[in-house]
Amino acid sequence: MSDIESRLIELGITLPQAAAPAANYVPTLITGNQLIISGQLPMQDGALKITGQLGNDVSIEEGVEAARLCAINILAQIKRTLDGFDRFERLLKLGGFVNAPASFTDHPQVINGASDLMVSVLGDAGRHTRFAVGAAGLPFNAAVEIDALVEIKA
Amino acid sequence: MSDIESRLIELGITLPQAAAPAANYVPTLITGNQLIISGQLPMQDGALKITGQLGNDVSIEEGVEAARLCAINILAQIKRTLDGFDRFERLLKLGGFVNAPASFTDHPQVINGASDLMVSVLGDAGRHTRFAVGAAGLPFNAAVEIDALVEIKA
Amino acid sequence: MSDIESRLIELGITLPQAAAPAANYVPTLITGNQLIISGQLPMQDGALKITGQLGNDVSIEEGVEAARLCAINILAQIKRTLDGFDRFERLLKLGGFVNAPASFTDHPQVINGASDLMVSVLGDAGRHTRFAVGAAGLPFNAAVEIDALVEIKA
Repeated sequence: MSDIESRLIELGITLPQAAAPAANYVPTLITGNQLIISGQLPMQDGALKITGQLGNDVSIEEGVEAARLCAINILAQIKRTLDGFDRFERLLKLGGFVNAPASFTDHPQVINGASDLMVSVLGDAGRHTRFAVGAAGLPFNAAVEIDALVEIKA
Repeated sequence: MSDIESRLIELGITLPQAAAPAANYVPTLITGNQLIISGQLPMQDGALKITGQLGNDVSIEEGVEAARLCAINILAQIKRTLDGFDRFERLLKLGGFVNAPASFTDHPQVINGASDLMVSVLGDAGRHTRFAVGAAGLPFNAAVEIDALVEIKA
Repeated sequence: MSDIESRLIELGITLPQAAAPAANYVPTLITGNQLIISGQLPMQDGALKITGQLGNDVSIEEGVEAARLCAINILAQIKRTLDGFDRFERLLKLGGFVNAPASFTDHPQVINGASDLMVSVLGDAGRHTRFAVGAAGLPFNAAVEIDALVEIKA
Protein backbone atom coordinates (compact mmCIF):
# COMPACT_ATOMS: atom_id res chain seq x y z
CA MET A 1 0.00 0.00 0.00
CA SER A 2 1.33 3.42 -0.90
CA ASP A 3 2.18 6.11 1.66
CA ILE A 4 -0.70 8.15 0.28
CA GLU A 5 -3.21 5.38 0.83
CA SER A 6 -1.84 4.86 4.39
CA ARG A 7 -2.32 8.55 5.14
CA LEU A 8 -5.87 8.46 3.80
CA ILE A 9 -6.63 5.64 6.24
CA GLU A 10 -4.95 7.47 9.13
CA LEU A 11 -7.03 10.55 8.34
CA GLY A 12 -10.18 8.44 8.13
CA ILE A 13 -10.80 9.49 4.53
CA THR A 14 -12.50 7.02 2.21
CA LEU A 15 -12.17 8.07 -1.41
CA PRO A 16 -15.50 7.93 -3.23
CA GLN A 17 -16.04 6.09 -6.50
CA ALA A 18 -14.85 8.77 -8.94
CA ALA A 19 -17.52 9.88 -11.38
CA ALA A 20 -16.90 8.10 -14.67
CA PRO A 21 -16.92 9.83 -18.06
CA ALA A 22 -20.57 10.54 -18.84
CA ALA A 23 -20.79 13.22 -21.52
CA ASN A 24 -18.80 14.98 -24.19
CA TYR A 25 -16.42 16.22 -21.54
CA VAL A 26 -14.38 13.89 -19.36
CA PRO A 27 -13.27 14.17 -15.72
CA THR A 28 -9.55 13.70 -16.50
CA LEU A 29 -7.05 13.61 -19.35
CA ILE A 30 -3.36 12.71 -19.40
CA THR A 31 -1.04 14.68 -21.68
CA GLY A 32 2.70 14.04 -21.44
CA ASN A 33 3.53 14.00 -17.72
CA GLN A 34 0.48 16.02 -16.73
CA LEU A 35 -2.95 14.94 -15.55
CA ILE A 36 -5.67 17.57 -16.06
CA ILE A 37 -8.73 17.26 -13.80
CA SER A 38 -12.10 18.85 -14.58
CA GLY A 39 -13.77 21.11 -12.02
CA GLN A 40 -14.94 19.03 -9.05
CA LEU A 41 -17.93 19.84 -6.84
CA PRO A 42 -18.42 19.03 -3.11
CA MET A 43 -19.98 15.62 -3.78
CA GLN A 44 -20.34 12.99 -1.06
CA ASP A 45 -22.03 9.59 -1.43
CA GLY A 46 -23.09 10.54 -4.93
CA ALA A 47 -24.91 13.71 -3.90
CA LEU A 48 -23.98 17.38 -3.85
CA LYS A 49 -23.32 17.97 -0.16
CA ILE A 50 -22.93 21.72 0.34
CA THR A 51 -24.92 24.25 -1.68
CA GLY A 52 -25.47 27.99 -1.42
CA GLN A 53 -23.38 31.12 -1.14
CA LEU A 54 -20.59 31.91 1.29
CA GLY A 55 -21.37 35.07 3.23
CA ASN A 56 -25.01 34.35 2.72
CA ASP A 57 -26.46 30.90 3.57
CA VAL A 58 -23.14 29.00 3.87
CA SER A 59 -20.79 29.55 6.83
CA ILE A 60 -17.01 29.69 6.58
CA GLU A 61 -16.83 26.31 8.29
CA GLU A 62 -19.21 24.79 5.74
CA GLY A 63 -17.26 26.45 2.92
CA VAL A 64 -14.01 24.94 4.22
CA GLU A 65 -15.73 21.53 4.32
CA ALA A 66 -17.00 22.06 0.76
CA ALA A 67 -13.47 22.79 -0.45
CA ARG A 68 -12.21 19.70 1.43
CA LEU A 69 -14.82 17.57 -0.33
CA CYS A 70 -13.77 18.98 -3.72
CA ALA A 71 -10.19 17.98 -2.86
CA ILE A 72 -11.28 14.46 -1.90
CA ASN A 73 -13.06 14.14 -5.25
CA ILE A 74 -9.88 15.35 -7.00
CA LEU A 75 -7.92 12.62 -5.16
CA ALA A 76 -10.53 10.07 -6.22
CA GLN A 77 -10.10 11.16 -9.86
CA ILE A 78 -6.31 10.85 -9.56
CA LYS A 79 -6.62 7.35 -8.09
CA ARG A 80 -9.14 6.19 -10.74
CA THR A 81 -7.16 7.61 -13.67
CA LEU A 82 -3.75 6.35 -12.51
CA ASP A 83 -5.14 3.13 -11.00
CA GLY A 84 -3.64 4.05 -7.63
CA PHE A 85 -1.03 6.60 -6.58
CA ASP A 86 2.18 4.94 -7.79
CA ARG A 87 2.42 7.20 -10.84
CA PHE A 88 1.44 10.35 -8.88
CA GLU A 89 4.37 12.77 -8.72
CA ARG A 90 2.93 15.99 -7.25
CA LEU A 91 0.06 18.44 -7.30
CA LEU A 92 0.80 21.48 -9.49
CA LYS A 93 -2.24 23.74 -9.30
CA LEU A 94 -5.72 24.18 -7.86
CA GLY A 95 -8.22 26.61 -9.42
CA GLY A 96 -10.64 27.59 -6.66
CA PHE A 97 -14.07 29.13 -7.35
CA VAL A 98 -16.14 30.17 -4.32
CA ASN A 99 -19.88 30.83 -4.77
CA ALA A 100 -20.26 34.18 -3.00
CA PRO A 101 -21.60 37.74 -3.33
CA ALA A 102 -19.29 40.77 -3.65
CA SER A 103 -19.42 41.43 0.08
CA PHE A 104 -17.56 38.15 0.79
CA THR A 105 -13.76 38.47 0.94
CA ASP A 106 -12.49 35.31 2.67
CA HIS A 107 -12.01 33.14 -0.42
CA PRO A 108 -8.48 32.09 0.63
CA GLN A 109 -9.73 30.75 3.98
CA VAL A 110 -12.36 28.68 2.19
CA ILE A 111 -9.99 27.23 -0.41
CA ASN A 112 -7.53 26.40 2.39
CA GLY A 113 -9.96 23.56 3.11
CA ALA A 114 -8.67 21.96 -0.09
CA SER A 115 -5.04 23.11 0.20
CA ASP A 116 -4.70 21.80 3.76
CA LEU A 117 -6.29 18.45 2.90
CA MET A 118 -3.91 18.02 -0.05
CA VAL A 119 -0.82 18.55 2.12
CA SER A 120 -2.23 16.32 4.89
CA VAL A 121 -2.65 13.47 2.41
CA LEU A 122 0.15 14.08 -0.09
CA GLY A 123 2.83 15.66 2.10
CA ASP A 124 5.27 18.00 0.34
CA ALA A 125 4.07 16.61 -3.00
CA GLY A 126 0.75 18.25 -2.21
CA ARG A 127 2.10 21.84 -2.09
CA HIS A 128 0.61 23.60 -5.11
CA THR A 129 0.02 26.92 -6.80
CA ARG A 130 -3.55 28.17 -6.86
CA PHE A 131 -6.02 30.93 -7.41
CA ALA A 132 -9.03 31.62 -5.19
CA VAL A 133 -11.78 33.83 -6.61
CA GLY A 134 -15.47 34.55 -6.22
CA ALA A 135 -17.91 33.01 -8.71
CA ALA A 136 -21.29 34.68 -9.35
CA GLY A 137 -22.85 31.23 -9.12
CA LEU A 138 -21.83 27.61 -9.60
CA PRO A 139 -23.36 24.48 -11.15
CA PHE A 140 -26.35 23.16 -9.19
CA ASN A 141 -25.71 25.95 -6.64
CA ALA A 142 -22.57 24.21 -5.33
CA ALA A 143 -20.73 26.29 -2.71
CA VAL A 144 -17.28 25.59 -4.19
CA GLU A 145 -15.80 24.24 -7.45
CA ILE A 146 -12.10 23.35 -7.81
CA ASP A 147 -10.15 22.07 -10.81
CA ALA A 148 -6.60 20.72 -10.71
CA LEU A 149 -3.38 20.04 -12.56
CA VAL A 150 -1.14 17.15 -11.48
CA GLU A 151 2.36 16.05 -12.46
CA ILE A 152 2.71 12.31 -13.04
CA LYS A 153 5.64 9.96 -13.51
CA ALA A 154 6.43 9.48 -17.20
CA MET B 1 -9.35 17.74 -47.05
CA SER B 2 -9.08 16.60 -43.44
CA ASP B 3 -11.82 14.63 -41.67
CA ILE B 4 -12.35 17.66 -39.47
CA GLU B 5 -12.97 19.96 -42.42
CA SER B 6 -15.37 17.37 -43.91
CA ARG B 7 -17.34 17.24 -40.69
CA LEU B 8 -17.53 21.03 -40.54
CA ILE B 9 -19.08 21.00 -44.01
CA GLU B 10 -21.51 18.19 -43.07
CA LEU B 11 -22.56 20.19 -40.03
CA GLY B 12 -22.96 23.33 -42.14
CA ILE B 13 -20.39 25.21 -40.04
CA THR B 14 -18.28 27.85 -41.76
CA LEU B 15 -15.33 28.86 -39.62
CA PRO B 16 -15.00 32.65 -39.37
CA GLN B 17 -11.82 34.54 -40.11
CA ALA B 18 -10.05 34.18 -36.75
CA ALA B 19 -9.33 37.50 -35.07
CA ALA B 20 -5.68 38.35 -35.70
CA PRO B 21 -3.26 39.52 -33.00
CA ALA B 22 -4.23 43.13 -32.28
CA ALA B 23 -2.83 44.15 -28.91
CA ASN B 24 -0.29 43.24 -26.29
CA TYR B 25 -2.02 39.94 -25.84
CA VAL B 26 -2.41 37.39 -28.61
CA PRO B 27 -5.22 34.94 -29.43
CA THR B 28 -2.95 31.87 -29.43
CA LEU B 29 0.53 30.67 -28.48
CA ILE B 30 2.29 27.37 -29.14
CA THR B 31 4.56 25.96 -26.44
CA GLY B 32 5.99 22.47 -26.91
CA ASN B 33 3.11 20.29 -28.09
CA GLN B 34 0.44 22.55 -26.63
CA LEU B 35 -1.58 25.34 -28.21
CA ILE B 36 -3.00 27.83 -25.70
CA ILE B 37 -6.07 29.79 -26.85
CA SER B 38 -7.20 33.08 -25.29
CA GLY B 39 -10.76 33.46 -24.03
CA GLN B 40 -13.15 33.56 -27.00
CA LEU B 41 -16.48 35.38 -27.07
CA PRO B 42 -19.66 34.46 -29.03
CA MET B 43 -18.64 36.42 -32.14
CA GLN B 44 -20.33 35.90 -35.51
CA ASP B 45 -19.64 37.83 -38.70
CA GLY B 46 -17.30 40.09 -36.74
CA ALA B 47 -19.89 41.13 -34.17
CA LEU B 48 -20.70 39.98 -30.65
CA LYS B 49 -23.82 37.91 -31.22
CA ILE B 50 -25.24 37.07 -27.80
CA THR B 51 -25.05 39.48 -24.87
CA GLY B 52 -26.63 39.59 -21.44
CA GLN B 53 -27.03 37.32 -18.44
CA LEU B 54 -28.29 33.77 -18.31
CA GLY B 55 -31.24 33.49 -15.95
CA ASN B 56 -32.02 37.09 -16.68
CA ASP B 57 -32.25 38.36 -20.28
CA VAL B 58 -30.62 35.34 -22.01
CA SER B 59 -32.47 31.99 -22.29
CA ILE B 60 -30.80 28.59 -21.87
CA GLU B 61 -31.17 28.03 -25.62
CA GLU B 62 -29.42 31.32 -26.38
CA GLY B 63 -26.73 30.49 -23.83
CA VAL B 64 -26.12 27.12 -25.49
CA GLU B 65 -25.84 28.90 -28.85
CA ALA B 66 -23.40 31.42 -27.31
CA ALA B 67 -21.19 28.58 -26.03
CA ARG B 68 -21.38 26.95 -29.49
CA LEU B 69 -20.22 30.19 -31.10
CA CYS B 70 -17.31 30.42 -28.65
CA ALA B 71 -16.34 26.87 -29.67
CA ILE B 72 -16.53 27.77 -33.37
CA ASN B 73 -14.21 30.71 -32.72
CA ILE B 74 -11.82 28.38 -30.86
CA LEU B 75 -11.82 26.06 -33.91
CA ALA B 76 -11.13 29.07 -36.15
CA GLN B 77 -8.14 29.99 -33.96
CA ILE B 78 -6.82 26.43 -34.12
CA LYS B 79 -7.14 26.42 -37.94
CA ARG B 80 -5.47 29.83 -38.33
CA THR B 81 -2.61 29.03 -35.97
CA LEU B 82 -1.88 25.54 -37.34
CA ASP B 83 -2.74 26.48 -40.94
CA GLY B 84 -5.37 23.74 -41.03
CA PHE B 85 -6.05 20.74 -38.82
CA ASP B 86 -3.25 18.38 -39.84
CA ARG B 87 -1.21 19.18 -36.73
CA PHE B 88 -4.25 19.07 -34.41
CA GLU B 89 -3.98 16.14 -32.00
CA ARG B 90 -6.82 16.64 -29.49
CA LEU B 91 -8.65 19.12 -27.31
CA LEU B 92 -7.39 19.05 -23.71
CA LYS B 93 -9.44 21.60 -21.78
CA LEU B 94 -12.18 24.22 -22.00
CA GLY B 95 -12.55 26.92 -19.35
CA GLY B 96 -16.18 28.03 -19.41
CA PHE B 97 -17.40 31.30 -17.90
CA VAL B 98 -21.16 31.97 -17.97
CA ASN B 99 -22.43 35.52 -17.40
CA ALA B 100 -25.15 34.94 -14.79
CA PRO B 101 -26.47 36.00 -11.39
CA ALA B 102 -26.22 33.79 -8.30
CA SER B 103 -29.72 32.42 -8.85
CA PHE B 104 -28.61 30.69 -12.07
CA THR B 105 -27.35 27.12 -11.61
CA ASP B 106 -27.38 25.51 -15.08
CA HIS B 107 -23.83 26.44 -16.16
CA PRO B 108 -23.06 22.86 -17.30
CA GLN B 109 -26.05 22.82 -19.66
CA VAL B 110 -24.88 26.10 -21.22
CA ILE B 111 -21.24 25.03 -21.65
CA ASN B 112 -22.46 21.74 -23.19
CA GLY B 113 -23.16 23.92 -26.24
CA ALA B 114 -19.38 24.10 -26.68
CA SER B 115 -18.58 20.56 -25.49
CA ASP B 116 -21.13 18.96 -27.83
CA LEU B 117 -19.97 21.02 -30.82
CA MET B 118 -16.37 20.01 -30.19
CA VAL B 119 -17.18 16.29 -30.19
CA SER B 120 -19.46 16.69 -33.25
CA VAL B 121 -16.60 18.25 -35.18
CA LEU B 122 -13.51 16.60 -33.68
CA GLY B 123 -14.87 13.17 -32.73
CA ASP B 124 -13.12 11.42 -29.85
CA ALA B 125 -10.25 13.91 -30.17
CA GLY B 126 -12.74 16.54 -29.03
CA ARG B 127 -13.41 14.96 -25.60
CA HIS B 128 -11.92 17.38 -23.06
CA THR B 129 -11.70 18.32 -19.42
CA ARG B 130 -13.43 21.54 -18.42
CA PHE B 131 -14.76 23.79 -15.75
CA ALA B 132 -18.07 25.66 -15.95
CA VAL B 133 -18.59 28.57 -13.54
CA GLY B 134 -20.59 31.77 -13.19
CA ALA B 135 -18.91 35.08 -13.98
CA ALA B 136 -20.19 38.28 -12.39
CA GLY B 137 -19.93 39.89 -15.81
CA LEU B 138 -18.01 39.43 -19.05
CA PRO B 139 -16.29 41.68 -21.62
CA PHE B 140 -18.77 43.78 -23.64
CA ASN B 141 -21.57 41.98 -21.77
CA ALA B 142 -20.93 38.72 -23.64
CA ALA B 143 -23.14 35.87 -22.40
CA VAL B 144 -20.29 33.32 -22.41
CA GLU B 145 -16.47 33.30 -22.58
CA ILE B 146 -14.45 30.12 -23.13
CA ASP B 147 -10.69 29.57 -23.29
CA ALA B 148 -8.99 26.38 -24.42
CA LEU B 149 -5.91 24.19 -24.31
CA VAL B 150 -5.09 21.93 -27.28
CA GLU B 151 -2.53 19.17 -27.84
CA ILE B 152 -0.75 19.35 -31.19
CA LYS B 153 1.53 17.01 -33.10
CA ALA B 154 5.17 17.75 -32.37
CA MET C 1 22.42 43.17 -16.02
CA SER C 2 19.72 41.63 -18.21
CA ASP C 3 17.73 43.60 -20.77
CA ILE C 4 14.67 43.01 -18.62
CA GLU C 5 16.27 44.55 -15.55
CA SER C 6 17.45 47.52 -17.66
CA ARG C 7 13.92 48.11 -18.89
CA LEU C 8 12.55 47.92 -15.35
CA ILE C 9 14.98 50.69 -14.38
CA GLU C 10 14.08 52.78 -17.45
CA LEU C 11 10.41 52.43 -16.57
CA GLY C 12 11.11 53.35 -12.95
CA ILE C 13 9.73 50.06 -11.68
CA THR C 14 11.22 48.56 -8.53
CA LEU C 15 10.19 44.94 -8.09
CA PRO C 16 8.94 44.25 -4.57
CA GLN C 17 10.23 41.46 -2.38
CA ALA C 18 8.12 38.58 -3.67
CA ALA C 19 5.92 37.00 -1.04
CA ALA C 20 7.63 33.83 0.17
CA PRO C 21 5.86 30.47 0.56
CA ALA C 22 3.75 30.81 3.70
CA ALA C 23 1.06 28.13 3.69
CA ASN C 24 0.07 24.85 2.13
CA TYR C 25 0.01 26.54 -1.24
CA VAL C 26 3.04 28.16 -2.80
CA PRO C 27 3.41 31.24 -5.02
CA THR C 28 5.25 29.39 -7.81
CA LEU C 29 6.16 25.92 -9.05
CA ILE C 30 8.43 24.82 -11.88
CA THR C 31 7.41 21.80 -13.97
CA GLY C 32 9.46 20.93 -17.03
CA ASN C 33 10.02 24.19 -18.89
CA GLN C 34 7.02 25.92 -17.34
CA LEU C 35 6.75 28.18 -14.31
CA ILE C 36 3.24 28.32 -12.81
CA ILE C 37 2.44 31.43 -10.75
CA SER C 38 -0.38 31.61 -8.18
CA GLY C 39 -2.96 34.38 -8.40
CA GLN C 40 -1.36 37.71 -7.51
CA LEU C 41 -3.15 40.66 -5.92
CA PRO C 42 -2.41 44.41 -6.35
CA MET C 43 0.10 44.52 -3.47
CA GLN C 44 2.52 47.42 -3.00
CA ASP C 45 4.94 47.86 -0.10
CA GLY C 46 3.48 44.77 1.54
CA ALA C 47 -0.09 46.09 1.58
CA LEU C 48 -3.10 45.56 -0.67
CA LYS C 49 -3.19 48.82 -2.61
CA ILE C 50 -6.47 48.87 -4.56
CA THR C 51 -9.67 47.37 -3.17
CA GLY C 52 -13.30 47.49 -4.23
CA GLN C 53 -15.36 46.88 -7.34
CA LEU C 54 -14.87 48.26 -10.83
CA GLY C 55 -17.97 50.09 -11.98
CA ASN C 56 -18.77 50.79 -8.37
CA ASP C 57 -16.12 52.30 -6.06
CA VAL C 58 -13.05 51.71 -8.29
CA SER C 59 -12.49 53.77 -11.48
CA ILE C 60 -11.17 52.34 -14.74
CA GLU C 61 -7.87 54.18 -14.11
CA GLU C 62 -7.55 52.60 -10.66
CA GLY C 63 -8.47 49.21 -12.13
CA VAL C 64 -5.74 49.55 -14.76
CA GLU C 65 -3.27 50.44 -12.00
CA ALA C 66 -4.44 47.42 -9.97
CA ALA C 67 -3.80 45.12 -12.95
CA ARG C 68 -0.38 46.75 -13.44
CA LEU C 69 0.48 46.05 -9.79
CA CYS C 70 -0.59 42.41 -10.18
CA ALA C 71 1.78 42.19 -13.17
CA ILE C 72 4.64 43.72 -11.17
CA ASN C 73 4.07 41.12 -8.46
CA ILE C 74 4.11 38.39 -11.13
CA LEU C 75 7.47 39.74 -12.35
CA ALA C 76 8.74 39.72 -8.77
CA GLN C 77 7.72 36.07 -8.43
CA ILE C 78 9.50 35.21 -11.69
CA LYS C 79 12.68 36.96 -10.52
CA ARG C 80 12.62 35.31 -7.08
CA THR C 81 11.94 31.82 -8.42
CA LEU C 82 14.48 31.96 -11.26
CA ASP C 83 16.98 34.05 -9.29
CA GLY C 84 16.87 36.74 -12.00
CA PHE C 85 15.61 36.73 -15.57
CA ASP C 86 18.34 34.72 -17.34
CA ARG C 87 16.17 31.60 -17.47
CA PHE C 88 13.01 33.51 -18.45
CA GLU C 89 11.92 32.57 -21.99
CA ARG C 90 8.48 34.16 -22.43
CA LEU C 91 5.12 34.80 -20.87
CA LEU C 92 2.51 32.25 -21.99
CA LYS C 93 -0.76 33.21 -20.28
CA LEU C 94 -2.44 35.61 -17.88
CA GLY C 95 -5.72 34.71 -16.17
CA GLY C 96 -7.42 38.00 -15.29
CA PHE C 97 -10.21 38.28 -12.72
CA VAL C 98 -11.82 41.71 -12.26
CA ASN C 99 -13.91 42.38 -9.13
CA ALA C 100 -17.05 43.92 -10.64
CA PRO C 101 -20.85 43.74 -10.76
CA ALA C 102 -22.76 42.49 -13.83
CA SER C 103 -23.22 46.03 -15.14
CA PHE C 104 -19.45 46.38 -15.72
CA THR C 105 -18.27 45.32 -19.19
CA ASP C 106 -14.77 46.81 -19.60
CA HIS C 107 -12.74 43.89 -18.22
CA PRO C 108 -10.35 43.90 -21.21
CA GLN C 109 -9.44 47.56 -20.66
CA VAL C 110 -8.65 46.83 -17.00
CA ILE C 111 -6.53 43.75 -17.69
CA ASN C 112 -4.66 45.71 -20.39
CA GLY C 113 -2.95 47.37 -17.41
CA ALA C 114 -1.15 44.06 -16.91
CA SER C 115 -0.78 43.12 -20.59
CA ASP C 116 0.74 46.49 -21.50
CA LEU C 117 3.15 46.42 -18.56
CA MET C 118 4.33 42.94 -19.53
CA VAL C 119 5.17 43.99 -23.09
CA SER C 120 6.80 47.22 -21.87
CA VAL C 121 9.12 45.23 -19.63
CA LEU C 122 9.53 41.94 -21.51
CA GLY C 123 9.23 43.07 -25.14
CA ASP C 124 7.94 40.48 -27.61
CA ALA C 125 8.58 37.78 -24.99
CA GLY C 126 5.80 39.43 -22.98
CA ARG C 127 3.05 38.84 -25.58
CA HIS C 128 0.70 36.31 -24.02
CA THR C 129 -2.68 34.62 -24.25
CA ARG C 130 -5.20 35.58 -21.62
CA PHE C 131 -8.75 35.60 -20.37
CA ALA C 132 -10.43 38.56 -18.72
CA VAL C 133 -13.61 37.91 -16.73
CA GLY C 134 -15.68 39.36 -13.93
CA ALA C 135 -15.35 37.87 -10.44
CA ALA C 136 -18.23 38.19 -7.97
CA GLY C 137 -15.65 39.12 -5.35
CA LEU C 138 -11.96 38.64 -4.68
CA PRO C 139 -9.76 37.89 -1.66
CA PHE C 140 -9.61 40.78 0.84
CA ASN C 141 -11.80 42.78 -1.59
CA ALA C 142 -8.89 43.19 -4.06
CA ALA C 143 -9.96 44.95 -7.28
CA VAL C 144 -8.05 42.53 -9.53
CA GLU C 145 -6.40 39.08 -9.29
CA ILE C 146 -4.17 37.68 -12.04
CA ASP C 147 -2.40 34.33 -12.31
CA ALA C 148 0.25 33.45 -14.89
CA LEU C 149 2.03 30.74 -16.85
CA VAL C 150 5.62 31.31 -18.01
CA GLU C 151 7.95 29.39 -20.31
CA ILE C 152 11.50 29.03 -19.01
CA LYS C 153 14.77 27.84 -20.51
CA ALA C 154 15.31 24.15 -19.83
